[in-house]
Amino acid sequence: MATFERFDAHVREHAREYVDELKELIRLPTVSAQGRAVDETGAAVLARAKRAGVAAEALRADGGPPTIVGETGAGKRTLLVYDHYDVQPPDPEGEWTTPPFEPTERGGVLYGRGVSDNKGNLMARLQAIEAYRATIGELPLRVRVLYEGEEEIGSEHLASFVKRHADRLRADGCIWEAGYKDAAGRPTVSLGLKGIAYFELRVRGAKQDVHSSQATIIPNPAWRLVWALATLKDESDRITVDGLMDHVRRPTAADRALIEKLPLDEEGTKRIHGIAGFVRGLTGTELKLKHFFEPTCTVCGLTSGYAGPGSKTVLPAVASAKLDFRLVPDLEPDLVARLLRAHLDRRGFADVEIIPMHGERPSRWPADSDAAKAAVAACRATYGTEPVVYPLMVGSGPMAQVCDELRIPVVGFGAGNAASANHAPNENILLADYIDHIRAFGRFLHTFAGLRLD
Amino acid sequence: MATFERFDAHVREHAREYVDELKELIRLPTVSAQGRAVDETGAAVLARAKRAGVAAEALRADGGPPTIVGETGAGKRTLLVYDHYDVQPPDPEGEWTTPPFEPTERGGVLYGRGVSDNKGNLMARLQAIEAYRATIGELPLRVRVLYEGEEEIGSEHLASFVKRHADRLRADGCIWEAGYKDAAGRPTVSLGLKGIAYFELRVRGAKQDVHSSQATIIPNPAWRLVWALATLKDESDRITVDGLMDHVRRPTAADRALIEKLPLDEEGTKRIHGIAGFVRGLTGTELKLKHFFEPTCTVCGLTSGYAGPGSKTVLPAVASAKLDFRLVPDLEPDLVARLLRAHLDRRGFADVEIIPMHGERPSRWPADSDAAKAAVAACRATYGTEPVVYPLMVGSGPMAQVCDELRIPVVGFGAGNAASANHAPNENILLADYIDHIRAFGRFLHTFAGLRLD
Repeated sequence: MATFERFDAHVREHAREYVDELKELIRLPTVSAQGRAVDETGAAVLARAKRAGVAAEALRADGGPPTIVGETGAGKRTLLVYDHYDVQPPDPEGEWTTPPFEPTERGGVLYGRGVSDNKGNLMARLQAIEAYRATIGELPLRVRVLYEGEEEIGSEHLASFVKRHADRLRADGCIWEAGYKDAAGRPTVSLGLKGIAYFELRVRGAKQDVHSSQATIIPNPAWRLVWALATLKDESDRITVDGLMDHVRRPTAADRALIEKLPLDEEGTKRIHGIAGFVRGLTGTELKLKHFFEPTCTVCGLTSGYAGPGSKTVLPAVASAKLDFRLVPDLEPDLVARLLRAHLDRRGFADVEIIPMHGERPSRWPADSDAAKAAVAACRATYGTEPVVYPLMVGSGPMAQVCDELRIPVVGFGAGNAASANHAPNENILLADYIDHIRAFGRFLHTFAGLRLD
Repeated sequence: MATFERFDAHVREHAREYVDELKELIRLPTVSAQGRAVDETGAAVLARAKRAGVAAEALRADGGPPTIVGETGAGKRTLLVYDHYDVQPPDPEGEWTTPPFEPTERGGVLYGRGVSDNKGNLMARLQAIEAYRATIGELPLRVRVLYEGEEEIGSEHLASFVKRHADRLRADGCIWEAGYKDAAGRPTVSLGLKGIAYFELRVRGAKQDVHSSQATIIPNPAWRLVWALATLKDESDRITVDGLMDHVRRPTAADRALIEKLPLDEEGTKRIHGIAGFVRGLTGTELKLKHFFEPTCTVCGLTSGYAGPGSKTVLPAVASAKLDFRLVPDLEPDLVARLLRAHLDRRGFADVEIIPMHGERPSRWPADSDAAKAAVAACRATYGTEPVVYPLMVGSGPMAQVCDELRIPVVGFGAGNAASANHAPNENILLADYIDHIRAFGRFLHTFAGLRLD
């Protein structure tokens, strides 16, 4: 029997046990935003890692939640596994078919908060390490783990943690938490994340709301906000914040080649969202280039004055907008904040307060790193098909805080699917995808260590 | 004893009884927006009018609340008294020092929902009619009353009611519901109201909110709304809706003369509202001209996407703005709706839906009408000072539906004060102002009938 036939057989034999073990982890309602079950889950994850042979310990940085670090195996190569054990709040809870923290199997699908993002991958990768040892032998490389407990609330303590514990985290490659099959069921491999800069813009007028008959003479912060916002992006969706687009790295020929191969089901996307067309009327390669290589400037929320039914004749005292910028290299949150402030000041909008809410740098890595090549090979061998390689994922996460800081080329693939509903009700993964991720990760360890897949 | 010495003595003698009677009316929670106590109050007001000798009846138009019409007295002149017996909702109820529907006297002030707007004036005017008869004799003119029960929710049935019952409402002059002393305690007389056109602007994007990482390609209705709004008014507060300002009647020399005499306490107003300056940096006559003779375009509310604390990375499915235009002659709600639609369409904003919410035409009347001259004379005689004459009040109401329809010159004066808190918690009037309005209205009847005040 070839090496991975034994491995696969073992995984299939233990499939029920693997899934049950994941379900146990899902039952812990690790909602970091509400501080629920964080310490308890950290302890459970630590114990589970130790059971898989990882010499691990839980550390706290500056009052943050437990961060679990550890290592196992030995070899010339070191792989860092980044996962997080916290999950998003389950609301709107009423929209779940079965309760978010009572994992439930229906028709080959496992539902529960965190199955896809990201307890599933965390658990599958530990199970893969055990299966490797049980069927192939001692790990041919050193595997380091980094499990954090506040990814869903902005990873506040991660950057300083990484700096402080760099020596326990350095590696030749990193596998990132997330990974999904695309809408057509093809496995995907991704090579980075966009960054994000989230701000609240706030304008104040009179001390309290005023009767709107006074709008002849009393300044209206809602208008100030509208006028300020209108200077940030034009009607063709071009960001007009002074100088911002100058920092956007233009796609290289290699980037364009990756993009050309990427599927984007335009008709399906339009149908899913109920839209007649895309921004700027784009289609084809231009649409994909925009999606992956352009930053965004998004009004995520507008709030001012009266929001109820019917009419209320009020001149608002305050107006605010939630605004997020998705960042591509070489944009960074601090840079965007500075450009935005200067842009508004230059136009007389010094009264528009900018409140930084959340920032993460983009992180992009080449397609020819050893980690990327190993991921592609592992997926090809597992799924029997060529994975789709994404230059980056359009979401964000604390990748730069780990991988840019330590200069570790990173790759992402995992057990999710295009309808996994991360952050939404009825989060789910296919049971088959869960088992396949164990199979793929075992192969990834093997080939990243320099061994041949057969 | 001169005519009005007897009248005043009678009013002072009965002051306690008058106030107690008003308090009884205030105890009825006539919140038309919630359909509370409307029929009950209509019946109470009808009975009270009859007791004052008014041959009145309650009519209903097309399922609306009771509208009370009636008349009393005889003479060459006919006066129409317009009041409404419904009140605003009391919320936020927690901010009332004493409950809104338990009228309470504190330090010479009467607190309760409706004492100023407008049950106080309604009751005072009936009491004045009785006092006139008790001390001077039969009324020297015909007085018609029109009491409606849905002024606070837009007077939906009033226009058709007035058309149908025009013969019972025609008059040579009209006294309007409201009137206030200004911040310096001077009595005021007003000659009209601004109109209003209230719209909701709504834009729809994707079927549901989308993760903001998709903002590269999925259209954002919040941006569409911002861009559309920004075309309606410029940063110097000039309304830029195509053609709208062409319909604004420019102030005449007589208007400017009225305005020059009007006080506007700029420092006090800035202090009250906590603002550094007025719109467009205006002061003095230019500020007052803008306040009274310019229309407004006010964002009363903005709603889109995430409005909670912290950040949520969402691309909203819907964005809406509540927008009110305060109208001066010759702007009318339908005209504004047409101009707004054409303006948006011309700029490619056909996707911005305009939902008309509430409209009232402006109504302006000359300072030299018999009603206006009688009001000034009555106030001068009552208060011993020259009243301040406002060309119009900057609020709105169904004045045009009554007075423009029937071509009745109108005037407004009443028992309110500059801090009466209409529509707000702790609505109040001074007890002395209430008694003075009875005194003033008795004099108004007398002089409007063509008799001399002595």
